[in-house]
Amino acid sequence: MASVDEAMLRAIALAARGLGTTSPNPVVGCVILDASGAVVGEGFHAYAGGPHAEIVALAQAGDRARGGTAVVTLEPCDHIGRTGPCTHALVRAGVARVVVAVADPNPVAGGGAQTLRQAGVEVEFGVRGAEAEAGNVAWLTSVRRGSPYVIWKYAATLDGRSAAADGTSMWITSEAARMDVHALRGTADAVVVGVGTVLADDPRLTARNLRDGTLAIRQPLRVVVDSAGRTPAEARVRDGAAPTWIATAADVGAGPQGRVDLRALLAALYRRGVRAALLEGGPTLAGAFLAAGLIDKIIGYVAPKLLGAGPPALADAGVHTIAEVIDLEYAEITQVGPDLKFTAYPRKREEG
Amino acid sequence: MASVDEAMLRAIALAARGLGTTSPNPVVGCVILDASGAVVGEGFHAYAGGPHAEIVALAQAGDRARGGTAVVTLEPCDHIGRTGPCTHALVRAGVARVVVAVADPNPVAGGGAQTLRQAGVEVEFGVRGAEAEAGNVAWLTSVRRGSPYVIWKYAATLDGRSAAADGTSMWITSEAARMDVHALRGTADAVVVGVGTVLADDPRLTARNLRDGTLAIRQPLRVVVDSAGRTPAEARVRDGAAPTWIATAADVGAGPQGRVDLRALLAALYRRGVRAALLEGGPTLAGAFLAAGLIDKIIGYVAPKLLGAGPPALADAGVHTIAEVIDLEYAEITQVGPDLKFTAYPRKREEG
Ligand SMILES: NC(=O)c1ccc[n+]([C@@H]2O[C@H](COP(=O)([O-])OP(=O)(O)OC[C@H]3O[C@@H](n4cnc5c(N)ncnc54)[C@H](OP(=O)(O)O)[C@@H]3O)[C@@H](O)[C@H]2O)c1
Ligand SMILES: NC(=O)c1ccc[n+]([C@@H]2O[C@H](COP(=O)([O-])OP(=O)(O)OC[C@H]3O[C@@H](n4cnc5c(N)ncnc54)[C@H](OP(=O)(O)O)[C@@H]3O)[C@@H](O)[C@H]2O)c1
Ligand SMILES: [Zn+2]
Ligand SMILES: [Zn+2]
Repeated sequence: MASVDEAMLRAIALAARGLGTTSPNPVVGCVILDASGAVVGEGFHAYAGGPHAEIVALAQAGDRARGGTAVVTLEPCDHIGRTGPCTHALVRAGVARVVVAVADPNPVAGGGAQTLRQAGVEVEFGVRGAEAEAGNVAWLTSVRRGSPYVIWKYAATLDGRSAAADGTSMWITSEAARMDVHALRGTADAVVVGVGTVLADDPRLTARNLRDGTLAIRQPLRVVVDSAGRTPAEARVRDGAAPTWIATAADVGAGPQGRVDLRALLAALYRRGVRAALLEGGPTLAGAFLAAGLIDKIIGYVAPKLLGAGPPALADAGVHTIAEVIDLEYAEITQVGPDLKFTAYPRKREEG
Repeated sequence: MASVDEAMLRAIALAARGLGTTSPNPVVGCVILDASGAVVGEGFHAYAGGPHAEIVALAQAGDRARGGTAVVTLEPCDHIGRTGPCTHALVRAGVARVVVAVADPNPVAGGGAQTLRQAGVEVEFGVRGAEAEAGNVAWLTSVRRGSPYVIWKYAATLDGRSAAADGTSMWITSEAARMDVHALRGTADAVVVGVGTVLADDPRLTARNLRDGTLAIRQPLRVVVDSAGRTPAEARVRDGAAPTWIATAADVGAGPQGRVDLRALLAALYRRGVRAALLEGGPTLAGAFLAAGLIDKIIGYVAPKLLGAGPPALADAGVHTIAEVIDLEYAEITQVGPDLKFTAYPRKREEG
């Protein structure tokens, strides 16, 4: 026996198992309770193209779903997609009540609650809404505004440097921190850098096991923001290990100074199915994203090291005087190996 | 009844109550156990010139000290100082055994154990030595090497800036962090800055209550490192609120580039009774101290803010390439109000 509240917490935990593999779909979890309140089915959406959480849970429940309750983290879909609408499956299975944490913001998939109610199913919203929202924040945010959720990740010394005065930087942060970054890449749909980073470091930008070099099964799209197409033909980012997009001003559209228009870039990435994007620098591109207010979350790895000279981790972000400082809020501060890792969110600025 | 181990932990806790007021003396705690092991006296050294911990505890114990054990965090003194040698007082009180955590490194006060043993008192060393050492680390370190223990404190944004591009910086860190700094000043014997900071910010450098401006009873010596004596006559640091030393190259001796010789500066401060010095910057002076290996501990306040431009919190520290990076080790990471506070120690570098 489980209360609806307990079932929702379980559904949220199930949903999280899909993180990193469901894009451009959300993560979703579902628990089916029979008429007496016993758990008779569980499911989550595991990968794009695979069955939805409700379908998996209903299959497990079988006849016991009749007269029961479906507890779902996201409003069931109502469109004829690759797997058929979940609303129809719920009705067919004879479910009497559907409890939803968060409404579907997707204009294509929305309307599931209405269809269910028309079929005589009771629908309730808002149970553990905040927790379910947090579990799906990148997807929900990106779908609501039609632009990817952008996480800026950087690594620096305590004094904010990303390399020594002579340009050397191998390695500022520890192996533990670098492994953490590869795991983070595995949950993103795209990894974005400026052409300056490609020219300076020639990174691979794949998600891989740092110890043996094996590639993760799912690779994020590698994006080089490169107004004039200066990425060398032999750059590692062009190897066949993962898809790559050299995003030029000609492709995307030009903003100030003839550089790639960043809003247009994000819109184009969204159209390509990118919901969560990991911006990995460098300092110039990160500054431009921050100045334009296009960063949703910041993850920093701060090594217990001092340089006192060398290129900064962040360049011009449009701030000239202290009143214009970009205010953040720490969400989490932990240690990863010897390094400090923090997560922070930009505070919304009042519109000027 | 208390074991000797329990008594020592209690003595260490008592000792800590003197932190910030005993300099140039160490903090010391003492517990007297009678012959049956009952606690009959407790004391700590509260301020320079006041009675030593042993004297306070013996006075409380009276006759019950006879045949008992004195448990002391530091080897009892043997010199005829302002309060007379504690060794004599212990012998006079008839104490049978003295248990000491840490030997006195002070060449003037040392030799207490020998005097006690010659008088027939049993002396034992090393109980809870590590804990007692930690509680007295600044004093022990400074006395062992004849040079103050130097804590570098700084405040910066996440990207390592201490002011915006136009020089404005009020306030990078929160009131909570600034109150923490004032408490820190209260535990230091001297607060040290470069003349650049005086010229830029005209700070008071007193330990005071930030809300109502009242001064702490005990004020650290204010030191301006100022090779050519450029500190303005009307600088706030010259007000009467606390003692001030404008340390010029003429006073102290000149090092490279005719600037104040930092080792000679520290030796002079030690001779003036400074055991714990708080280096408050700015970036140039901090870089010079780091380059010379003269920093013992670093306390940083990192505000959840980004600037992307402006003066760095740390300037040239003699590091040109990544192999020369100054390696630290985090000891503690906490939040003070909205800011992150960390404590770190420089790792000893192999001699080149
Ligand atoms: N600490 C870290 O985490 C980290 C991460 C990555 C890199 N880095 C370091 O950063 C250094 C490279 O710095 P960087 O600043 O040259 O690299 P960057 O930020 O990766 O690239 C900057 C370039 O991006 C292009 N770009 C295109 N559209 C832009 C727009 N709208 N706004 C801004 N830039 C745009 C510009 O070149 P075009 O105009 O030609 O397109 C610009 O010069 C390397 O030394 C690397 O090691 C550090
Ligand atoms: N973030 C923070 O926590 C913090 C703290 C303090 C200050 N600041 C900022 O730092 C800025 C001032 O920077 P700054 O670098 O000019 O100040 P600074 O480090 O306080 O002063 C530097 C000056 O100290 C003198 N000095 C004397 N002996 C020296 C030696 N052996 N090595 C190095 N310097 C020696 C030098 O001038 P002479 O050769 O003429 O003696 C030198 O120019 C201000 O904007 C202030 O707001 C920030
Ligand atoms: Zn569905
Ligand atoms: Zn004494």
